Amino acid sequence: MVGGGPTSFVGPIHRMAIRMDDLADLVDGCYSHTDDWHELIERVRGKVDFLIVTTPNNSHFEIAKAGLEAGLDVLCEKPLSLTVREAETLGKLAAKKKLVLGVPFTYTGYPMVKLARDLVKKGVLGKIDKVMMEYVQGSFRRKNASSRKWKMDPKIAGPSCVIADIGVHAFTMVEYVTGLETKELLADVSTYANDAGLEDDASILMRMSEGVKATIVTSKVATGEENGVRLRIYGSKASLFWDQEAPNYLSVKYPDAPERIYKRKASYVGALSPRSVAASRFPAGHHEGFVEALANIYDEFTAAVRTRKGRDFPGAREGIRSMRFVEASLKSARNGSRWTKI
Amino acid sequence: MVGGGPTSFVGPIHRMAIRMDDLADLVDGCYSHTDDWHELIERVRGKVDFLIVTTPNNSHFEIAKAGLEAGLDVLCEKPLSLTVREAETLGKLAAKKKLVLGVPFTYTGYPMVKLARDLVKKGVLGKIDKVMMEYVQGSFRRKNASSRKWKMDPKIAGPSCVIADIGVHAFTMVEYVTGLETKELLADVSTYANDAGLEDDASILMRMSEGVKATIVTSKVATGEENGVRLRIYGSKASLFWDQEAPNYLSVKYPDAPERIYKRKASYVGALSPRSVAASRFPAGHHEGFVEALANIYDEFTAAVRTRKGRDFPGAREGIRSMRFVEASLKSARNGSRWTKI
Amino acid sequence: MVGGGPTSFVGPIHRMAIRMDDLADLVDGCYSHTDDWHELIERVRGKVDFLIVTTPNNSHFEIAKAGLEAGLDVLCEKPLSLTVREAETLGKLAAKKKLVLGVPFTYTGYPMVKLARDLVKKGVLGKIDKVMMEYVQGSFRRKNASSRKWKMDPKIAGPSCVIADIGVHAFTMVEYVTGLETKELLADVSTYANDAGLEDDASILMRMSEGVKATIVTSKVATGEENGVRLRIYGSKASLFWDQEAPNYLSVKYPDAPERIYKRKASYVGALSPRSVAASRFPAGHHEGFVEALANIYDEFTAAVRTRKGRDFPGAREGIRSMRFVEASLKSARNGSRWTKI
Amino acid sequence: MVGGGPTSFVGPIHRMAIRMDDLADLVDGCYSHTDDWHELIERVRGKVDFLIVTTPNNSHFEIAKAGLEAGLDVLCEKPLSLTVREAETLGKLAAKKKLVLGVPFTYTGYPMVKLARDLVKKGVLGKIDKVMMEYVQGSFRRKNASSRKWKMDPKIAGPSCVIADIGVHAFTMVEYVTGLETKELLADVSTYANDAGLEDDASILMRMSEGVKATIVTSKVATGEENGVRLRIYGSKASLFWDQEAPNYLSVKYPDAPERIYKRKASYVGALSPRSVAASRFPAGHHEGFVEALANIYDEFTAAVRTRKGRDFPGAREGIRSMRFVEASLKSARNGSRWTKI
Repeated sequence: MVGGGPTSFVGPIHRMAIRMDDLADLVDGCYSHTDDWHELIERVRGKVDFLIVTTPNNSHFEIAKAGLEAGLDVLCEKPLSLTVREAETLGKLAAKKKLVLGVPFTYTGYPMVKLARDLVKKGVLGKIDKVMMEYVQGSFRRKNASSRKWKMDPKIAGPSCVIADIGVHAFTMVEYVTGLETKELLADVSTYANDAGLEDDASILMRMSEGVKATIVTSKVATGEENGVRLRIYGSKASLFWDQEAPNYLSVKYPDAPERIYKRKASYVGALSPRSVAASRFPAGHHEGFVEALANIYDEFTAAVRTRKGRDFPGAREGIRSMRFVEASLKSARNGSRWTKI
Repeated sequence: MVGGGPTSFVGPIHRMAIRMDDLADLVDGCYSHTDDWHELIERVRGKVDFLIVTTPNNSHFEIAKAGLEAGLDVLCEKPLSLTVREAETLGKLAAKKKLVLGVPFTYTGYPMVKLARDLVKKGVLGKIDKVMMEYVQGSFRRKNASSRKWKMDPKIAGPSCVIADIGVHAFTMVEYVTGLETKELLADVSTYANDAGLEDDASILMRMSEGVKATIVTSKVATGEENGVRLRIYGSKASLFWDQEAPNYLSVKYPDAPERIYKRKASYVGALSPRSVAASRFPAGHHEGFVEALANIYDEFTAAVRTRKGRDFPGAREGIRSMRFVEASLKSARNGSRWTKI
Repeated sequence: MVGGGPTSFVGPIHRMAIRMDDLADLVDGCYSHTDDWHELIERVRGKVDFLIVTTPNNSHFEIAKAGLEAGLDVLCEKPLSLTVREAETLGKLAAKKKLVLGVPFTYTGYPMVKLARDLVKKGVLGKIDKVMMEYVQGSFRRKNASSRKWKMDPKIAGPSCVIADIGVHAFTMVEYVTGLETKELLADVSTYANDAGLEDDASILMRMSEGVKATIVTSKVATGEENGVRLRIYGSKASLFWDQEAPNYLSVKYPDAPERIYKRKASYVGALSPRSVAASRFPAGHHEGFVEALANIYDEFTAAVRTRKGRDFPGAREGIRSMRFVEASLKSARNGSRWTKI
Repeated sequence: MVGGGPTSFVGPIHRMAIRMDDLADLVDGCYSHTDDWHELIERVRGKVDFLIVTTPNNSHFEIAKAGLEAGLDVLCEKPLSLTVREAETLGKLAAKKKLVLGVPFTYTGYPMVKLARDLVKKGVLGKIDKVMMEYVQGSFRRKNASSRKWKMDPKIAGPSCVIADIGVHAFTMVEYVTGLETKELLADVSTYANDAGLEDDASILMRMSEGVKATIVTSKVATGEENGVRLRIYGSKASLFWDQEAPNYLSVKYPDAPERIYKRKASYVGALSPRSVAASRFPAGHHEGFVEALANIYDEFTAAVRTRKGRDFPGAREGIRSMRFVEASLKSARNGSRWTKI
């Protein structure tokens, strides 16, 4: 593991997620700026199953690249890189060397998000009309907003703050659940918390394949919000709603029948999708949360590492598309919110 | 009253709202297409306090105009007219004749919406950054969507379906609660439920005074939604959330303190605003709803009729601005979602 | 109307409820202690359709009795009397004179409570096992708890405070929705807010017909609760939950299928009961509340007054049974919480 | 570890909880009926830090006793034994040998339950009046209720089904959060799902120290409930509400101020208790659930094993008191719900 030292938010979560299902042992790491990750890669080359990258954004690309070049499967935190070109380079490299590249868009690991995707696939919603997605946080409005400084600093964060940091989760979830591709988008961005910094708020309209429209709102200045990841999809036959702050439930509404609340791994497993049940550990009523969702990503990723076969986790494709989303959003915003191809 | 006959949705609500606080008697009416509203106006001229217009959109203007010309105060359902020009004509006519013109944007009559406005005014939210507003219904996705046909028909509904029908409520609420003016907007609209008809879905980005940004989503194809009127405002010091489906509560979130749930006319009236308390009839826990909100509009409107003084209800200004919102949205959508002055 | 003067809580609500559906005109009243209700009854005898009694508890019996003796139909606030014997006297008098006697247990007027009853009757819940009912308020814990003094004073309130004041609502709702009769009960009561006064908190276990068990918790010292009327019924096939603070919804849970949220007068009227739909004024999403529920009681009561036929509103039977509930609860509490026949 | 084999519900959860914070390694186990746990204890005696017992109820006592006699610290699932006498024997044995005995009442491990306890201790609620506690499940109403048979069978489960299985969690939580002792109780129990079996539903009234009253409802036939663990405490100054199905929140209501929603490890850590923060892994908005709660128990238990000092986890005292609760409840129910000392 590179990154994820004592002050890291994601480092300990990754380690807990790995231990949860006892799928891998963390054998070596480079947890501090002063450690040399090149040496780490040399040390573990040929000896470990995969490399985890949880450093700040601006080193993702070079470390992931070095890992792949050393023949290691790699799980790299989002954003996969600072540019689309870099992400594509990683994708091509992994493909060429037949290595597994994972990008832990953790929210796609939630059982009820998988159920949402499977209900869509099964046609329960009919033809999708519209998606409303949001990922809003209020972290930059806290007195002690320690992350605000570096996250708004282009030298460390790259060209984007909120879109690259959490907007990519929103975007990936929209494409993951609908199974559709975004064709073009327009964006309006703002910088509220620090005049000199990168954007901390964005409103984005999207046009997807099959005539579907979507809105994405993402913000770091949504005062009082903790981690508001909320997805709604309206189809011709039904709609669904998922809220990460009540992650074990999925609401499905119908035009002419009462709303239904699906619960994770409830007794009516027949009505749930096999994949959502497989991604659950405990019966309904015993809450699973963030670490279980990340563990689900690891379950699928490590299975891919073992079997060398495709599995249900976000990888190079999602990493690249999410970078295209970042670039298209920034470009549209610079151009007076003009519609921009993705 | 003109309109509001047996098949009308709003007619009975208006009559209940008028009776609720016993402020006026309904003395005469013209409730059917076959009745002649010109005759009604002649009959009541000089004998009644005011005229209520609850007909379909395409006759609002001429009836309201005739009423004002006959010297009657007028309360006219939204949209006030089919065009900005017509709305301005009514506004000027009312101003010239010193008559009261009311437009019942009912949601502004809810006590907790008034509290939201008063908390904003008092500075509780600090500097506002962003507003997220939605008014979504799923009515056009029902099997028996009787209103779909005429509401999507330009001959009856005018140039807009969803924006003029419910989007104007959303827009008016945003300006009412924030006290700000919208400067420009961009829109993307869709027609899902009936290929040949007017737009039934719209996503709108707005730039308001003082650098505030807003999003408005409005839809008639939000399957399973009944009457989803939801307002969120994020400020530098706090944010607020109101949902019409739980109208007696207002949530206020802070960056560094627990979320607070304000309840209508609770014991802590000191923490509530006098106007929100005045707009309440029963103590907290005894639910008030839609008819009470409309009755609050009537309370203020009839007080204005009696006193000839300005009061807290939406009138010509809001009627005109909401028509500008409709026109700007349609224009932007026609022009590839270009930013458009309002 | 007797009672319901300027400081009354229920008086204005009754007047609004009567006006809501325009069913009756309030023609005469006696709204103050200094007015003589005997004179009122003399004045209106033979001239009005019915008499409304909304005075404090200790005069309900004599006024209702005088009204019935004068040949008037009577709607009398709960508790119908101070003792079972008095309630029975009123019941017999009404029966003998073929007069309509109504007791406005308002919560039975809510559309979703009627739906709950109708789903039970239809067998949707299967065999009922258990009922959990609560009616808890925190009013006695407020600084300015003006009603605390007289409600805890046996001279005005009679032998019971919380059980007679709000416990009777809880009890009546349990019997109304289940259609069952309570056979015996045991109670433990407390006096927290004022050592010298009547009970302000009670926990009651009940055994009903068909082997059903129920719990009722009622309190005036449930700090922070506004008007917590919550009903749960668990049956062999399904369970239901209704909360007066979200009165337009009814949750139904199944052992092997997702929870369903029924909404008042939603598009799926086929799945709702005709009576719950008939008791609704506006479509789902437009909130109805307390005054509509009371108006529903009046709708049925005035229909009974007109037609002289039985209708769906609580009357003498419910008034008498609720007084038996009060007496049995107090007796059980005095006897060490012994099981006591009702 | 004894018990917790492939078909076990709690076994895998224990193993995940142990791994979560990487505090111990599971080195040996006896996971099946055919394995001999006596041999296991011989094998590990002197070599491991502690023994975990997750077998069915009827072997808890003898295995825990053998473990303690072999000088091992023991964590034993609830109910600690089948009788009070057995529980007391284990308690005395552990005390005599200065060994650590833990009983994983998992719900006491939730951060917001610790916050509830700490707010009570700090006096935020004032003098407590009343506690309403419930632990209701609908598992016995499912078609495929595999556990119903053995849980209602006295040969395996002992003298009690629902009270010993989940009622003890409810009881322990009430005493844990209030810091009070139950003095006497009365109970009414039922057997609904299987006429021949042990009780599957119970309603219990309790009188605690300092004049506090409590109600406990526990059921296996609460159709549609998954794992309804809900605690409310009403005090003279405030009340609190916690629901295990939304475990990261704690609601606190005041008589004269808006309700507050506390969130686990939110930015306002000053307003939270240090222990609730210490029991949290991720910032607010990233959900923690059941396994984290159990891991918190293990964190404290293993710390006690290491330091030989008392820590914040339920042990012999809670195991014994909960067995007294079971016995007193059954005795009261047999005696016509008479008040029974605990």
